Amino acid sequence: MITIFGLEGIPIIKAGDDLGEIIVRAAERMGVGIEDGDVVVVTQKIVSKAEGRLINLDEVRPSSFAEEVARSSGKDPRHVEVILRETHRIVKMRGHVLIMETRHGFVCANAGVDLSNVGGGEASLLPEDPDESARRIRRRIMELTGKDIAVIITDTWGRPWRLGQVDFAIGVAGMKPLKDYRGEKDPFGYELTVTNIAVADELAAAAELAKGKLSGIPAVIIRGYEYPKGDGRAKDMNRQQEDDLFR
Amino acid sequence: MITIFGLEGIPIIKAGDDLGEIIVRAAERMGVGIEDGDVVVVTQKIVSKAEGRLINLDEVRPSSFAEEVARSSGKDPRHVEVILRETHRIVKMRGHVLIMETRHGFVCANAGVDLSNVGGGEASLLPEDPDESARRIRRRIMELTGKDIAVIITDTWGRPWRLGQVDFAIGVAGMKPLKDYRGEKDPFGYELTVTNIAVADELAAAAELAKGKLSGIPAVIIRGYEYPKGDGRAKDMNRQQEDDLFR
Repeated sequence: MITIFGLEGIPIIKAGDDLGEIIVRAAERMGVGIEDGDVVVVTQKIVSKAEGRLINLDEVRPSSFAEEVARSSGKDPRHVEVILRETHRIVKMRGHVLIMETRHGFVCANAGVDLSNVGGGEASLLPEDPDESARRIRRRIMELTGKDIAVIITDTWGRPWRLGQVDFAIGVAGMKPLKDYRGEKDPFGYELTVTNIAVADELAAAAELAKGKLSGIPAVIIRGYEYPKGDGRAKDMNRQQEDDLFR
Repeated sequence: MITIFGLEGIPIIKAGDDLGEIIVRAAERMGVGIEDGDVVVVTQKIVSKAEGRLINLDEVRPSSFAEEVARSSGKDPRHVEVILRETHRIVKMRGHVLIMETRHGFVCANAGVDLSNVGGGEASLLPEDPDESARRIRRRIMELTGKDIAVIITDTWGRPWRLGQVDFAIGVAGMKPLKDYRGEKDPFGYELTVTNIAVADELAAAAELAKGKLSGIPAVIIRGYEYPKGDGRAKDMNRQQEDDLFR
């Protein structure tokens, strides 16, 4: 049995806030606490806020290329400028859709630069190193509770071929993001040759169900899932350019 | 709080089996039962088996194109022949990877034709109409229990840009697969313009965590999630060719 708890009562986060402690206190207040083996799933937005990864659009001066892209995409030129600063490579541009490869190696719309849930006139950027952010939150929660846990930081992305968005893992600590079945045999003796499940992404998606977009629940505890132990990173899920058929 | 129960003790499924009844009995034996608002998540493999969607590879005669693709991909020519029969359009072929658009409009490897967990010499095909399969299972469970539930049928697919596979919803009944936030405002007054969460895919991914690939748990109950009510289909999540940037 796996249980998912959405943590209520987490205040608006500001730069410098101690997310680990805020999460532990919220879990205590709800009577849920933190237990060994829990996966703590945290929305990127509050991690970026705590790390001061917000940018005031009034202070952004768009380049001429940003102005050009803004014209064809119908976006704010300052928003486009911030997107381009976070971009390693443009994967696809059409209409208002800008699919970018970020400096972390993630492929997502707008290079993860988002205007929602941050307040007027600001844009949020992805954490500089979301795996390191996850490690930091994990260390703090383990320090406060003495429990051995995993931490996942999530963002909400669209997918090719399929409508709608789901949450993905962009930072991971205390677990491996992939559960590898390759070489194992099914009950009929057939050897699995490709099965390698992205459980960190499945945990991210599961957590979103308890968060919602407007409910003010930016962190979730998943209890009872035996995650693959080890020192993994979300970056381990980035498919390299040369192995990718769609980039 | 959301709870995920993996249903144990489900026997090997054969053509003609009554999946609705088998699921209800398994849930009863575990003391979990079926409650109003449950989401019953069923692996494609047992749906295909119950519907007799298995094909004996010894009875398949490969076309010359199938022989050609088999040579370049290193696959069994009979497997390739079955894949091509299920294919509406070839999206990408390289090495052993065949990304196909199925007749349902899904884009996935091998058009969903799978050799694992079926027994020697057979291949499983996706259900003819997985949304109809989900509706049938839902009707049967509601008839046996009197409870109002949703049903999701899942398959395991890879993703561009990202390593590993996750479970996706290929059949849906009793709910809408997408939760649409477009036009709503965040707590800061910013209007969400694209947010439309593929909750059926998130439920599929969450359920996989309680299934695993070798544990013989092909069905799961998710309890406590308020899914979007309505008469939706998994097909509603297919992005149309003209709106797709990667096909």
